[in-house]
Amino acid sequence: MTFAAVDVIRTKRDGGVLSDAAIDWVVDAYTKGVVADEQMSALAMAILLRGMTPAEIARWTAAMIASGERLDLSAVDRPTADKHSTGGVGDKITLPLTPLVAACGVAVPQLSGRGLGHTGGTLDKLESIPGWRARLDNAEFIAQLRDVGAVICAAGDGLAPADRKLYALRDVTGTVEAIPLIASSIMSKKIAEGTGALVLDVKVGSGAFMKSLDDARELARTMVDLGTAHGVRTVALLTDMSTPLGLAVGNAVEVTESVEVLAGGGPADVVELTLALAREMLDAAGRPDADPAAALADGRAMDAWRSMVRAQGGDPDAALPTARETHTVTAAADGFVSAVDAYAIGIAAWRLGAGRARKEDPVSAAAGVVLHRKPGDPVRAGEPLYELRTDDPNRFEAALSAAAEAVSISAEPPVPTALVIDRLA
Amino acid sequence: MTFAAVDVIRTKRDGGVLSDAAIDWVVDAYTKGVVADEQMSALAMAILLRGMTPAEIARWTAAMIASGERLDLSAVDRPTADKHSTGGVGDKITLPLTPLVAACGVAVPQLSGRGLGHTGGTLDKLESIPGWRARLDNAEFIAQLRDVGAVICAAGDGLAPADRKLYALRDVTGTVEAIPLIASSIMSKKIAEGTGALVLDVKVGSGAFMKSLDDARELARTMVDLGTAHGVRTVALLTDMSTPLGLAVGNAVEVTESVEVLAGGGPADVVELTLALAREMLDAAGRPDADPAAALADGRAMDAWRSMVRAQGGDPDAALPTARETHTVTAAADGFVSAVDAYAIGIAAWRLGAGRARKEDPVSAAAGVVLHRKPGDPVRAGEPLYELRTDDPNRFEAALSAAAEAVSISAEPPVPTALVIDRLA
Repeated sequence: MTFAAVDVIRTKRDGGVLSDAAIDWVVDAYTKGVVADEQMSALAMAILLRGMTPAEIARWTAAMIASGERLDLSAVDRPTADKHSTGGVGDKITLPLTPLVAACGVAVPQLSGRGLGHTGGTLDKLESIPGWRARLDNAEFIAQLRDVGAVICAAGDGLAPADRKLYALRDVTGTVEAIPLIASSIMSKKIAEGTGALVLDVKVGSGAFMKSLDDARELARTMVDLGTAHGVRTVALLTDMSTPLGLAVGNAVEVTESVEVLAGGGPADVVELTLALAREMLDAAGRPDADPAAALADGRAMDAWRSMVRAQGGDPDAALPTARETHTVTAAADGFVSAVDAYAIGIAAWRLGAGRARKEDPVSAAAGVVLHRKPGDPVRAGEPLYELRTDDPNRFEAALSAAAEAVSISAEPPVPTALVIDRLA
Repeated sequence: MTFAAVDVIRTKRDGGVLSDAAIDWVVDAYTKGVVADEQMSALAMAILLRGMTPAEIARWTAAMIASGERLDLSAVDRPTADKHSTGGVGDKITLPLTPLVAACGVAVPQLSGRGLGHTGGTLDKLESIPGWRARLDNAEFIAQLRDVGAVICAAGDGLAPADRKLYALRDVTGTVEAIPLIASSIMSKKIAEGTGALVLDVKVGSGAFMKSLDDARELARTMVDLGTAHGVRTVALLTDMSTPLGLAVGNAVEVTESVEVLAGGGPADVVELTLALAREMLDAAGRPDADPAAALADGRAMDAWRSMVRAQGGDPDAALPTARETHTVTAAADGFVSAVDAYAIGIAAWRLGAGRARKEDPVSAAAGVVLHRKPGDPVRAGEPLYELRTDDPNRFEAALSAAAEAVSISAEPPVPTALVIDRLA
């Protein structure tokens, strides 16, 4: 069935519901270039401002999946489970989590992305490991999943090409922040990659994409329903992103912190969230009795990490890049750290070179922020709060200005808050 | 001052007000190709759904004017007045009005457009006159205005190029129907053409762009304020477009009807609106004592028409194209015509070949609809209601289906309605 693009746009613009046939047509026609970029961006803005019904979102997602291939992971002789985070500051959880779950007998087909803006990207972090490569073809991807049980790599061009084209368009047209489009973008790729189970880490707070709990809950509900409708066992955790995860924010510094977790140490919040997500993934994959804490403690997770890094050309024993310049910020007064603002720290790390402003920009492996204090920690005047790292000292000024109000100090210790806020299934 | 396009889009998307500097930048950057089509279409959709303040509309219009040249009509030794109609079915008023006002001593610099969709275009109508040409350069335009006092031609490329680019974009992205963008598009061209006075004929009803009186009034108010702010004496009439104007809808048939009016005859509604608009133009141009009815009656308006057509290469005595095929629709019952739906008749004329679906399509000079009855007229079963004309009989079926419900017949005569609904100054 053929439509006029302008009629489809007008229907949504005027608050109407797009028919299944109209959605199938517009996604396919856009992928083929029949619907022009300027038409799709007008439609995306209308979707952002008018919304979509659950049935429209489901059909839109199905059309995005149908724009490409859907991987068949039946050659992997274990259950599969994947995790997706909506993105945060210091969110390196994929790095310890993927080998940890693999070590517990569930294969993890993790297709990841790169950072943009103040949030980091898993592939950027792993690329600070000498030799490691992000691109695998489908045969390599499935072979590594079967042989090692853990893969973290870039999504191939064959998966949901409509999403790739649409995401690039949304990025430059102010139409990223539409829950129907966010949910269908994430879920079309995850469903197309062929995973049997999926755990979503939906972040909420200053450092997250979703600043309000209501928006985060709506996004989580939408994605869980989409996954379930496509036969993927899907669970979502809503987790706090008002404070950076762990102490390290950047690329190489986050790999180092991840390896500490795999070695049985690491910051308490990173360990807590890694285990919570691992238990959800194992449960959703039909292995509720697996014990991820034991796999961290006895070195099986670290073994899986080393195998996974080696399988993609990386040297797990190589020294990681370190920054040539550091600048330490100290406390002005005695007290307790009451808040470390994730957004401010994320912007500071970005300005130090850890992130990119445009998709084609390179990132610095060594740049980033290392926290010396987290909320609840006591501090005395003159003691370090955080440390900025970069190869380019000209970047300190902009980073310091971004981070200026990031750390709050109060006379009394703050009331502790929960990291995992809610669970939806 | 430089902005990021995505920040400008986000501001409007989130319901904010664009600063003067942001508007100046985005209009200029779009004209130069720095802001891409897909960014401007997203912004246009956000403007359509979020609106603009009067100050934003004024600045946007000023930026569109500043994108090109502003004509200087000081070489014309008379006052100037122009008219703009928002478009309707059978709206040939520009044809008799322009020479009529010129015959009363006020020069009329009428830059007109082509039809798109169910509404006709003044240039398309005039092009059915053998030899007549729509394109004049600025020197020819000003010389004819000085020598003949009347010009109807296409707008030159130098006037508001931002509007030309933006209008073409809005047409394919479902963003035509935004009052701030309609008002700024019309007024930027009219202000740039240099007219001293302007009368707006804002149509309302099924055959008009604005279907509701509230929307028409808002558009009229916005345009009057824009014109006044730029030193153009501006008045708007709100006029009814639920019924086609006159009996002829098409191209050559409308020229013929216009010549009847100039000869002192013609349908009463066409004469009424032509005189009403002429009086407003003469009044706004400082000639309140001129008598346009006399200029119609004594042949001065006809003389001005003939001079105007000849000045642009046309032969006012040439036979106009006639359609090879006609089909007459008759009344099924006795009674009174209670309604003739302008939109349905406009669509029928379009399907017969009088209009175009895309800007690059040709139009048929001969095609159209000729009404035999108007609302209030008595009719007997079997008597003609209207006649379809085309060179291509394959078009009858689609036209008949469009016009099927156009004419309503009732036992009692309908209550007469006013053609001029309101006046704003």
